[in-house]
Amino acid sequence: MSRTLFVGDREFFPGIGRIEYEGPGSDNPLSFKAYDPERIVAGKSMEEHLRFAVCYWHTFCADGADPFGPGTRQRPWAAGNDPMDNARSKLDAAFEFFTKLNVPFYCFHDRDMAPEGETVAQSESNLKQLVTLAKERQQASGVDLLWGTANLFSHPRYMNGGATNPDFLVVAHAAAQVKAALEATVELGGQNYVFWGGREGYSCLFNTDTKRELEHFARFLAMARDYGRSIGFEGAFLIEPKPMEPMYHQYDVDAQTVIGFLRHHGLDRDFKLNIEANHATLAGHSSAHDLQMAVDAGMLGSIDANRGNPQNGWDTDQFPMDMYDCVQNMMIVLAAGGLGSGGFNFDAKVRRESTDAEDLFLGHIGGMDAYARALVIADRIVSDGKLEAFKASRYTSFGQSAGRRFENGELSLADLRDFAAGSPEPVQQSGKQERVENLLNDYMFT
Amino acid sequence: MSRTLFVGDREFFPGIGRIEYEGPGSDNPLSFKAYDPERIVAGKSMEEHLRFAVCYWHTFCADGADPFGPGTRQRPWAAGNDPMDNARSKLDAAFEFFTKLNVPFYCFHDRDMAPEGETVAQSESNLKQLVTLAKERQQASGVDLLWGTANLFSHPRYMNGGATNPDFLVVAHAAAQVKAALEATVELGGQNYVFWGGREGYSCLFNTDTKRELEHFARFLAMARDYGRSIGFEGAFLIEPKPMEPMYHQYDVDAQTVIGFLRHHGLDRDFKLNIEANHATLAGHSSAHDLQMAVDAGMLGSIDANRGNPQNGWDTDQFPMDMYDCVQNMMIVLAAGGLGSGGFNFDAKVRRESTDAEDLFLGHIGGMDAYARALVIADRIVSDGKLEAFKASRYTSFGQSAGRRFENGELSLADLRDFAAGSPEPVQQSGKQERVENLLNDYMFT
Amino acid sequence: MSRTLFVGDREFFPGIGRIEYEGPGSDNPLSFKAYDPERIVAGKSMEEHLRFAVCYWHTFCADGADPFGPGTRQRPWAAGNDPMDNARSKLDAAFEFFTKLNVPFYCFHDRDMAPEGETVAQSESNLKQLVTLAKERQQASGVDLLWGTANLFSHPRYMNGGATNPDFLVVAHAAAQVKAALEATVELGGQNYVFWGGREGYSCLFNTDTKRELEHFARFLAMARDYGRSIGFEGAFLIEPKPMEPMYHQYDVDAQTVIGFLRHHGLDRDFKLNIEANHATLAGHSSAHDLQMAVDAGMLGSIDANRGNPQNGWDTDQFPMDMYDCVQNMMIVLAAGGLGSGGFNFDAKVRRESTDAEDLFLGHIGGMDAYARALVIADRIVSDGKLEAFKASRYTSFGQSAGRRFENGELSLADLRDFAAGSPEPVQQSGKQERVENLLNDYMFT
Amino acid sequence: MSRTLFVGDREFFPGIGRIEYEGPGSDNPLSFKAYDPERIVAGKSMEEHLRFAVCYWHTFCADGADPFGPGTRQRPWAAGNDPMDNARSKLDAAFEFFTKLNVPFYCFHDRDMAPEGETVAQSESNLKQLVTLAKERQQASGVDLLWGTANLFSHPRYMNGGATNPDFLVVAHAAAQVKAALEATVELGGQNYVFWGGREGYSCLFNTDTKRELEHFARFLAMARDYGRSIGFEGAFLIEPKPMEPMYHQYDVDAQTVIGFLRHHGLDRDFKLNIEANHATLAGHSSAHDLQMAVDAGMLGSIDANRGNPQNGWDTDQFPMDMYDCVQNMMIVLAAGGLGSGGFNFDAKVRRESTDAEDLFLGHIGGMDAYARALVIADRIVSDGKLEAFKASRYTSFGQSAGRRFENGELSLADLRDFAAGSPEPVQQSGKQERVENLLNDYMFT
Repeated sequence: MSRTLFVGDREFFPGIGRIEYEGPGSDNPLSFKAYDPERIVAGKSMEEHLRFAVCYWHTFCADGADPFGPGTRQRPWAAGNDPMDNARSKLDAAFEFFTKLNVPFYCFHDRDMAPEGETVAQSESNLKQLVTLAKERQQASGVDLLWGTANLFSHPRYMNGGATNPDFLVVAHAAAQVKAALEATVELGGQNYVFWGGREGYSCLFNTDTKRELEHFARFLAMARDYGRSIGFEGAFLIEPKPMEPMYHQYDVDAQTVIGFLRHHGLDRDFKLNIEANHATLAGHSSAHDLQMAVDAGMLGSIDANRGNPQNGWDTDQFPMDMYDCVQNMMIVLAAGGLGSGGFNFDAKVRRESTDAEDLFLGHIGGMDAYARALVIADRIVSDGKLEAFKASRYTSFGQSAGRRFENGELSLADLRDFAAGSPEPVQQSGKQERVENLLNDYMFT
Repeated sequence: MSRTLFVGDREFFPGIGRIEYEGPGSDNPLSFKAYDPERIVAGKSMEEHLRFAVCYWHTFCADGADPFGPGTRQRPWAAGNDPMDNARSKLDAAFEFFTKLNVPFYCFHDRDMAPEGETVAQSESNLKQLVTLAKERQQASGVDLLWGTANLFSHPRYMNGGATNPDFLVVAHAAAQVKAALEATVELGGQNYVFWGGREGYSCLFNTDTKRELEHFARFLAMARDYGRSIGFEGAFLIEPKPMEPMYHQYDVDAQTVIGFLRHHGLDRDFKLNIEANHATLAGHSSAHDLQMAVDAGMLGSIDANRGNPQNGWDTDQFPMDMYDCVQNMMIVLAAGGLGSGGFNFDAKVRRESTDAEDLFLGHIGGMDAYARALVIADRIVSDGKLEAFKASRYTSFGQSAGRRFENGELSLADLRDFAAGSPEPVQQSGKQERVENLLNDYMFT
Repeated sequence: MSRTLFVGDREFFPGIGRIEYEGPGSDNPLSFKAYDPERIVAGKSMEEHLRFAVCYWHTFCADGADPFGPGTRQRPWAAGNDPMDNARSKLDAAFEFFTKLNVPFYCFHDRDMAPEGETVAQSESNLKQLVTLAKERQQASGVDLLWGTANLFSHPRYMNGGATNPDFLVVAHAAAQVKAALEATVELGGQNYVFWGGREGYSCLFNTDTKRELEHFARFLAMARDYGRSIGFEGAFLIEPKPMEPMYHQYDVDAQTVIGFLRHHGLDRDFKLNIEANHATLAGHSSAHDLQMAVDAGMLGSIDANRGNPQNGWDTDQFPMDMYDCVQNMMIVLAAGGLGSGGFNFDAKVRRESTDAEDLFLGHIGGMDAYARALVIADRIVSDGKLEAFKASRYTSFGQSAGRRFENGELSLADLRDFAAGSPEPVQQSGKQERVENLLNDYMFT
Repeated sequence: MSRTLFVGDREFFPGIGRIEYEGPGSDNPLSFKAYDPERIVAGKSMEEHLRFAVCYWHTFCADGADPFGPGTRQRPWAAGNDPMDNARSKLDAAFEFFTKLNVPFYCFHDRDMAPEGETVAQSESNLKQLVTLAKERQQASGVDLLWGTANLFSHPRYMNGGATNPDFLVVAHAAAQVKAALEATVELGGQNYVFWGGREGYSCLFNTDTKRELEHFARFLAMARDYGRSIGFEGAFLIEPKPMEPMYHQYDVDAQTVIGFLRHHGLDRDFKLNIEANHATLAGHSSAHDLQMAVDAGMLGSIDANRGNPQNGWDTDQFPMDMYDCVQNMMIVLAAGGLGSGGFNFDAKVRRESTDAEDLFLGHIGGMDAYARALVIADRIVSDGKLEAFKASRYTSFGQSAGRRFENGELSLADLRDFAAGSPEPVQQSGKQERVENLLNDYMFT
């Protein structure tokens, strides 16, 4: 399905029209070579499978600044003197971009869309004004909100944490933001609501009461859940794990840490995970690992699609271009029956040196083509069934007699000992990793 | 308390007598400069605080082999032709070492102490014979067993996992070993029983059913717990986390992952954690972090005291010599009220190039002196109280009015929003990390 | 060109015949899907481009042992009681494997091929006997020697270093081995001779005189060079960088470190580099980086083709399967005009859990297919020329007027200052990394 | 020697006087516990040994911003509307700080001290005005300039590199800045001039001509050297290695890479190294390693004293507090005969959460006390001589007969072979790393 092209009073990406599927033969950089939204794969259109979203922050707020230099990119929508006027221009630029790129979804933080005011009330009012406008834009264009969130990490007041700040008044400010962001998400029909705890952690273990802070965090999440449900939010609450950066150590380390925390505090019925690839690798896992752990727990909510540099120890948030990651992630998503109300959100940014306006499009096109190709390849693998059959064959002993009784909880340790003592030495079974990897390449490079 | 010196039919460390405390002025490498077992610190003797243990595997079984070359060390106790004779010699060497070093505890894997036989029954018999002898040695010397464990990772049959092997028959073999090792631990009065899952994980995500394997793991642990309790084991079961090596990825990643797993499967009343410093750093945490997480959960069981090289990405298992780690770990242990039935086990090995017989002593002496110094320093910090007072002062707002009501669960998200809206902007509170770090150095280098 | 199939008195890989090219449609795991030795790409056959070599050590000597368990693989050629008989069987197994896999080259360490004797003279004699036999096998089969080397890291005498050992007598032993290995290499027509300094480094900086050891190393290499030249060796001497493992820190950190060392000691006319992918990543570089640095210096000698796990901090030596690395490496090799007398040597091993005899073939097939595909893709990229043209376009200012004079050394700092002061502000030029990456994926996944 | 306290028209650190040595017993956080500038150690005063410098950028320019949030710190000197007025205020704040802290040196980038103008000429004029003022301040206070440098990485024009930019006009701008910064350094009596190549590297290997860029870099350095010498600069030019960040990969990876580069281009007579601890660790080395490599090459120029977090993969630039690093670094510096015209520059910043004005002092006090303690301990180790004697003893075989002839180049490979063949097997010599490490702790914790 194509959304209606939106261009506001001013066109911010002149010379660039809607990005169309032109196929692998095309020489046009501003076209899709693989992403054909209406193409049917495994019974659904690519668009329905992939549910792509553009993020507001990297694409419309960030300017290329890094710790060693200021921004490099032009952002004509931010050039005015009045923050609210700039915010309205930015919204227009965003919807122009969404519809030219033809993505079904976007995501935002409260402070991406509307500037913080001088008081809580003014901040709320600013956000409400922009939300009203955004709702109009959504209705006019057909672009929907994948998720909203509150920025509890940029303002200096959050330097020691948001929900886990040692000062209760700061926690209260965090609550005020979450309340308003939940209301905005509901108003805009957002399908999920995300918590990323960028300052929820510590820089120094010895000035921090980790136990108390984590209990505060659980209480805060429960309050947010209760409030969200009370105003009609029926979507999923999502936690986005990250192990470090900006803090030395953050609480939501990885999928399993967060799953354990949510279950311990009885939050696992309302909360799921938003897995970001580059966060998983910073935690020492492949992105496939964190996805699989979330799927195993029945708690995969959504995906922040990006990648890091294997040689760099910080979040480079590059567009997902490594087809090995994309294919493996898609295999997991397909096996899990799809993303449900989640999507692939491009939490990715062009490099500081990528300063042409079209570069914002090129980055997204590359990511969308990568996942479109990955979907086709993953479907090929799943349909062919060889890999899955090999995996299943390794566990056949649990489908039978003693193995099955073990799984059913009918055997004791002594029973197992007797089984081993009464059986011949196990037959060696090669794990055949090389065979599996060869198959993967054969499927990818037919 | 000094244990009775034990020397078997043959003395394996001739020329080395009991290692005595000689104090900082001593020039004798084979003396303690700081560890004075009977010195009272914070109301208990050093020996009672530190509960040092020597591990059987690194010190008596390993010979210095690494992936690029064979062993370098002489082990006269392993020089015979009969594996059982060698095992008896090794036991004598071990008790000679324990008593010369004057440690109260040791730890072992089943296969460290007795060789695997050709059948399950023979392996059990081998172990029983050695356990009988070890019990005699314990009684004669006064050295006790801190914990026992089963080696479910070395034998080729475990190459695809022990408790999580895809082949049920291998799981049954693992169970047979655990059953016998539990019996041995009970027989020897062991205070804890440990599981380290070196092959419980995967080398390739795509030939592995992680969900099923983890369910098998939980069932296996429950069976072991039930069996242990049935034969009178009253100590703690411990899981020792490690994120990788030998596998690409292991299931027991770190403290929080394991805590979540244990709670989810209802195992958290019987199981605690054995935290190894070098495993924590491989998982991207400081060892203090993993200790603190275990303490926060009430699940700190014991400590494998060692360290890694910050520049090397594998388990170097060096003796703990970095006083920053030792002091921070001791601060956490003191604040937690001590190690209970756990101890500081030196899961550490001398370098492949350290080939003198005395080097085994020197490594342990260094580690014991380091923790003895750390105990004194940590006690100084705790007694002085400045650090703890600063930490507590950061959270005073939660001791009062609205903050307290938040902690008590009496406020809603909207209440917090109103509190923020009705209060002045929070006063900025420096985290004062530099002050904390200066204090730490001032305490350490008086 | 196909080599003559060799099978000795005993067939070690029964049931496996010559691996043939069957193309992408084939369902036969024991066939090449992409590597077609005689296929012409960019004017040369695949075989001539890729010059594949099998390594003796991983494939015929190693048995799957790792630091946590013994070997898992059957090696029928090593089953006898006499080391020299085993060595002869191993040689037969190796040539059977080489010719069934149809690779043009192999590589070996002295101790891979013949066992160490009790004296220097006996070790030399052992090696000579095997070399005589290997020469026969080479002539009969048409398989050639890519390079030879001496193992100066496994024997306990080398625990503190080979050429850089603090004990001169150990250095002399290292020299004896290199002398014999050079003679063997010459006898077998080896095209290169390699030094990998696995124990040339330190575990502890404070017992090591790094300056003196590095001077010894330079002298040792010069002596080896002189001796090699004196006996008619006309090939390249190669250093293989690796930053760590087994030592805490090794001297030959990476390409640039070694290039600087060789130049400083006047060794850069005879010595080049053997770049191993997994060693480059352990040093914090991509493998493409180290290759490019070697090419820039005119010192690329050969390639050890493998890969590591991005999440594991040790040398996993997996077969090269990541097509991004393979394509980028091939682009560099093609741009450099090929490998000359070097080749792609599979310094790679199957996983410990890969215990079927065919797994040794599958690993190599996967690696060969990967580089064959990479050759085709890299040729497509180079032929199309878009990427190269974009790169060149970024530097056009140096082809003209002031820029050219700068390159020619005709301008001073003050001239440049005046040029800047007299010119308008530079026009911003996007680095267009996303465009480059999209192109790469478009070329790979047509 | 105490510098004259400087306070400008406005006092920027009211309530804080000169930081005095009060010794270990003091409870005053704003005092030195260990750094007693006039205390004589090893024949020189602490001040002469340590030559501490404060850096302008972290302490007076940075405000605590990180990639996830804006600044948190008050900088009253930057509060005005006129950039030049602010620059003058900042200079006053800086000299107030230098003299209150009582450091003999400072360091700066051109853009730290004076704002960039709209033209090259205006930037030069701005800098000159501030330099004139700085010279007055230096003379009045007795504080000297350790080194100057030009910021070739912050301005967007340098996003693709400074001296290695693909656009010659940008290179010319870089030259203009270096020319002016050299003049400023000479005017201020700076003892060194530094190049840190933060943007000299690449984000994408495939749009970069690394060979050409490195040749440009060498030419650029030569031009700078020639210009510096022509205007009377007699100090050392220094390169500061860093492997990555902000770029994916930077050219000046580590000490050995830079040493090789400088020697290759004939720059090693004028250029030395400025080693930053946190940069060495990002490159996979200990800071001691990079220092030792620089000393071995006779090219240690100066030290940027700081540290990173072992768990974080970016430059955290924390104050040096880890006494193991400080002691090892001081041992190397003492063995090298001191720092010459270099110094210990605190390229370190307080945490974003450290927002009290006094925190800037506390960070520096901690670093100064750490190195003062380290000096005392290192002197104790060197004076005692045990460690050095053990190291020397390992190499005795090279002081005699054949070993000496080897070092003198009088032996061939065949001679060595004969020596080995004619000698008994080498006697195993333990590396005794545990003994060395125990000694280190015994020296540190007497």
